[in-house]
Amino acid sequence: MSLGEFELIQRYFAEASSDASVALGIGDDCAVCSIPEGQQLAVSIDSLVQGTHFLEGTPADLLASRLFGSALSDLAAMGATPAWITLALTLPSADDEWLQLFSTRLFELCRQYGVALIGGDTTKGPLQLSAQVHGFLPKGKRLTRSGAREGDLICISGTVGDSRGGLEGLLNGFENDRHADYLLDRFYAPSPRIELGEALLDKASAGIDISDGVLSDLAHILKASGQLGARLQLEALPISNQLIETFGEERSRQWALTGGEDFELCFTLSPEYLPFLPQLSMPVSVVGKVTSSAKVELFLRGEACEIQGSGYDHFHHN
Amino acid sequence: MSLGEFELIQRYFAEASSDASVALGIGDDCAVCSIPEGQQLAVSIDSLVQGTHFLEGTPADLLASRLFGSALSDLAAMGATPAWITLALTLPSADDEWLQLFSTRLFELCRQYGVALIGGDTTKGPLQLSAQVHGFLPKGKRLTRSGAREGDLICISGTVGDSRGGLEGLLNGFENDRHADYLLDRFYAPSPRIELGEALLDKASAGIDISDGVLSDLAHILKASGQLGARLQLEALPISNQLIETFGEERSRQWALTGGEDFELCFTLSPEYLPFLPQLSMPVSVVGKVTSSAKVELFLRGEACEIQGSGYDHFHHN
Repeated sequence: MSLGEFELIQRYFAEASSDASVALGIGDDCAVCSIPEGQQLAVSIDSLVQGTHFLEGTPADLLASRLFGSALSDLAAMGATPAWITLALTLPSADDEWLQLFSTRLFELCRQYGVALIGGDTTKGPLQLSAQVHGFLPKGKRLTRSGAREGDLICISGTVGDSRGGLEGLLNGFENDRHADYLLDRFYAPSPRIELGEALLDKASAGIDISDGVLSDLAHILKASGQLGARLQLEALPISNQLIETFGEERSRQWALTGGEDFELCFTLSPEYLPFLPQLSMPVSVVGKVTSSAKVELFLRGEACEIQGSGYDHFHHN
Repeated sequence: MSLGEFELIQRYFAEASSDASVALGIGDDCAVCSIPEGQQLAVSIDSLVQGTHFLEGTPADLLASRLFGSALSDLAAMGATPAWITLALTLPSADDEWLQLFSTRLFELCRQYGVALIGGDTTKGPLQLSAQVHGFLPKGKRLTRSGAREGDLICISGTVGDSRGGLEGLLNGFENDRHADYLLDRFYAPSPRIELGEALLDKASAGIDISDGVLSDLAHILKASGQLGARLQLEALPISNQLIETFGEERSRQWALTGGEDFELCFTLSPEYLPFLPQLSMPVSVVGKVTSSAKVELFLRGEACEIQGSGYDHFHHN
């Protein structure tokens, strides 16, 4: 069955929003929204492209969770509270089953995170999905990449490398299937660390979400904070048992450092805030310290070591 | 030459914004912006896909003007004042010449319309460009599709059909070259009718920008305003001499009604505001009247007539 653009939007995406900040939602030339008194707007845009970010034939509900999670993760990294989302969908055809799966999962996530879908554009072409997300921040506050200082602790939430393990399984199969569901879920359904980001807003000196890999994203913080460096203790890297039991310790560690798209938060913290870490809503690991050396030094059980590759960059790979 | 994503953004898109509403621009996980007191935000997203909206090999500066013009046109249709833009670019490769052309033209237009580029995402894949635009609206005001009333005049700015004529020339050649530049310019560099939209905010009862064709876009107004109808006088349609001299009267009239992407404004106006039309910043034609009949009747020099096709829809054409 083929659907026109207007009918398509009406049928799958015109769920009425009850959000007080949305004066006019989907269906006109623009959405019209307001920002609560004393707040600013945080804005970010993200794309998923077939062949670059996901394989042909990926189920639409998994694409919805991947798109939503990665887009909201940028708000988390800023310490912002999610508010609105807009979509630009390019689809080879208006496939009912695909749209049903996609929109159902998307609205589930919107409800879970308190986000209103306020607009979108659907066009015909090679499969590609863009999401722009908007969040609120108290005026004058934000968690940027540029506030790290020498001596700050380097912290990582959750575990890293899992998403790369999930991708490995998709591309080359899992060496054993025991944790396949867990690893695939980490790849397809990243959890944006919104609550953590909000809690860090007044505490962390700098923050970023791990989309390109720990080494690459940490490098952004260090550079933006004035050509600083870091010492990392690799044994402190948070790596899941599931990843190690599936791919072994060495590959897991490599992926923990260079695998992208975990969408955990990497942040720096003055040591005085150390007692604050156990009060956070999720486990956080201290993996190193900011230095003034302008380079990143890696240590494994006290010994200096090196690691190949430094992260993910669309235009350098393939 | 191949560029990494970070270097690419830095080199071509990190022009510092001096806009007072932008607290943090390009280069972090989110942009952070504020909305002036007493204003609301209008938001719209638009995509251009190679093969659907433009032909392979289209120069990058023309894509920039096409994307910018069509995106801002949605703000014009809402009566909003442009403020910020974000981009999602999917490119087959990081081509220096392409990026230079694209970004130079984009920033020219940003300066012309007072728009700050606040964020973006670049990915590798089949050529596709999305722009999300944000504008300001005085609180409680907006020009929507849903306020037309029986007896209102139906008005169109500028001329319509030119963009379709430009496309015809691209696809099948021009019958004569005299006005090729004009028609191609109307296709590639639409002028968003910002000043007109702002002026209509307090006057027009409903408005839309002509992206799908006069008949199709007027139908959106009539439907959204409560299943209303219209009587159109085809001889009153604003058609350029350039279009008629290139493609003849009959085709020109067909395209004036059903050709999309002119990005003029179509709006409805209570007859009491008729004296207001000559004061507007650009020519506006009264082409008909809103009726209660729930159908659109066409008249040419007093005779009822019919016309084929009703507009452009990505998922029906192909």
